[in-house]
Amino acid sequence: MNAHTLTNTMIETISPHWIHGERFCVTYRIAATGAQAQSIADNICLEQTVEVTRSVIPAEPIGSWILGHIESIQTIAANASIAVISYAAEIVAGELPQLLNVILGNTSLTPGVRVEKVELSPAVSAAFKGPRYGVAGWRKLLNAETRPILATAIKPMGLTVQALADKAYAMAVGGLDIIKDDHGLTNQKFGLYAERVARVSDAVRRANAVTGGNTLYAPNVTGPIEQVWERARLAKNAGAGALLVCPGLIGFDVMRALADDDSLNLPILAHPSLLGAFVAHPDHGIAHGVLFGLIARLAGADASIFTNYGGRFAFTVEECRAIATACAAVSGTLAPILPVPAGGMTLERIPDLHRTYGTDVMYLIGGALMAHSPDLVANCQLFRKLVTMQL
Amino acid sequence: MNAHTLTNTMIETISPHWIHGERFCVTYRIAATGAQAQSIADNICLEQTVEVTRSVIPAEPIGSWILGHIESIQTIAANASIAVISYAAEIVAGELPQLLNVILGNTSLTPGVRVEKVELSPAVSAAFKGPRYGVAGWRKLLNAETRPILATAIKPMGLTVQALADKAYAMAVGGLDIIKDDHGLTNQKFGLYAERVARVSDAVRRANAVTGGNTLYAPNVTGPIEQVWERARLAKNAGAGALLVCPGLIGFDVMRALADDDSLNLPILAHPSLLGAFVAHPDHGIAHGVLFGLIARLAGADASIFTNYGGRFAFTVEECRAIATACAAVSGTLAPILPVPAGGMTLERIPDLHRTYGTDVMYLIGGALMAHSPDLVANCQLFRKLVTMQL
Repeated sequence: MNAHTLTNTMIETISPHWIHGERFCVTYRIAATGAQAQSIADNICLEQTVEVTRSVIPAEPIGSWILGHIESIQTIAANASIAVISYAAEIVAGELPQLLNVILGNTSLTPGVRVEKVELSPAVSAAFKGPRYGVAGWRKLLNAETRPILATAIKPMGLTVQALADKAYAMAVGGLDIIKDDHGLTNQKFGLYAERVARVSDAVRRANAVTGGNTLYAPNVTGPIEQVWERARLAKNAGAGALLVCPGLIGFDVMRALADDDSLNLPILAHPSLLGAFVAHPDHGIAHGVLFGLIARLAGADASIFTNYGGRFAFTVEECRAIATACAAVSGTLAPILPVPAGGMTLERIPDLHRTYGTDVMYLIGGALMAHSPDLVANCQLFRKLVTMQL
Repeated sequence: MNAHTLTNTMIETISPHWIHGERFCVTYRIAATGAQAQSIADNICLEQTVEVTRSVIPAEPIGSWILGHIESIQTIAANASIAVISYAAEIVAGELPQLLNVILGNTSLTPGVRVEKVELSPAVSAAFKGPRYGVAGWRKLLNAETRPILATAIKPMGLTVQALADKAYAMAVGGLDIIKDDHGLTNQKFGLYAERVARVSDAVRRANAVTGGNTLYAPNVTGPIEQVWERARLAKNAGAGALLVCPGLIGFDVMRALADDDSLNLPILAHPSLLGAFVAHPDHGIAHGVLFGLIARLAGADASIFTNYGGRFAFTVEECRAIATACAAVSGTLAPILPVPAGGMTLERIPDLHRTYGTDVMYLIGGALMAHSPDLVANCQLFRKLVTMQL
């Protein structure tokens, strides 16, 4: 071949036998109407797939198959439209990073477009194992068949490992189900991971021996990628019963791989650190239910922590309900998971929370449980009593 | 210990000898003024560190050391303030995910707070090797001492591997420096990674033999975490001279670890897929220069792709200049890196781009290079000529 005669017309395309027509759909909210919205939707079809102008795309099979297709577009408000765009299942290649890339990747760089809904096709959905435990798994592990699950966190950062272990002991004796590391606890010199996991696991084991309970400790394995599995194995070997992972800090796919790892076989709590930018603006990013519900489930979370309405964060009750709904919704073979409202929750709010979330929920009360009274065991017992009273 | 008598007053704290006073600073833009801004800044100090109310924090050393400190706060507009908050270097533990967590983690869930500037302290900065090659490294690899570096992408997704390799051959013969995979190319059945990397690497090698040039191929190693290193090694062994990584899809820390890996020893291009949500709103997220400049450098990028002003994306010329400035700014021992304006760039804009970016830049023109005329080699030669003419 003489390179100087190579032209763009010399395009071979893929064999038609790959095309079997399965597509999945993403619903975008576009902050525009009419011809402008149509133009933005047309650009999404290109941007999320071929990233070239239509003029250089062979009609068959790239234009007809690889390219995003607008399935419907309609005006929903004075300055907003909804467009449903379908993508070929094959372009995802069964890979979570690429699924995220196709759903929003480059279009995240275009303000005014928000992912409102994702409807996976069977082949895309089947590529992901999803939650290893889910709601049913937590209930079995915790011997808690019908009630809400109660969680808390050991903190503040800066306490000695022994002080954190003492707190964990009190919390387990007080009857809580899950004791997680505060997500800022990693491997600081003043609270080294290995020492913390050994001592806290031991404290929880001793408390369970006293109470006959099944409290699980969930250490935070979010860290440098070279150490994540080492920390997870250390947690497993120490007897920690779960893992805390921050997918916003180390990637959703790392969480997915931890969940998929049969040698770990531990339930996972997903923490929302750094994910707020995606949901901060109604015109942009990813809807709460998609991010903290569907994507968390695809990425193997068994419980998805989010910032509850009425606390020190900004989520509305509707957004929180959308997350809870998405955690439970039927979606291929993905197990339903527990929504975990958190962030400035207090004991006084439990009756209201019960009306919002019902029983398939994990309540996470951290700081308020320490501040409620100086007796941490009594505070935990009160937490459990207040939840049980709602049933 | 009798758990029922354990109280919050029984808090041991860390040994004072850890405290040596080094702190690093984050400047936040807060969409409020006066007492409200002060209150938000106070909350950031708590939220990013101890995550409990002040009432349960021992004053020494947690309150005095671990807790964020407001170093200054001032009103800058009718509805905006700037707060500089310092954090103890030790809480970062030398870990990139934790640095991101301290900088914005939970506060990302509070709209109205944006990271405008990060000033690392010596100990925090020294924990990160940063770019392996940087500007000087690219220039040496490419034998291009003073001119802008020229990059393009093979696409669209859906072409056969052979068609992509043919394009890469033409682009290399046409005199471009870097040929990257389009970031949507992963391991689809119609364009398997291993086959693509082998054939494109071979095409670029053959072109270099013809031209005597040093064109580098940068395959996209963004994929399932279990396969990222396998793909990177495959690229290395096939003779690909660089890697393309999407930190928004697989995590900044995975990119950092690829950059740190001596067995790979390859320069890295960072792609901005999915990162747009962080910069979409002036009241929220992370400033362009911090995200695509400082954080990309900390995470080992040797070149940072972003969407250029005046193209099909929304960045302003000031935002793009801020990225270029942050790529070059002195920051500890981090090597300066190349800013890579991209996204709807055309050949006609080169004179304007030259005035904006000068010579320490990598221009990435993809689709427009294919669409300019049917002769891809001639288009690449024109691209190079137009850039050289500016010097």
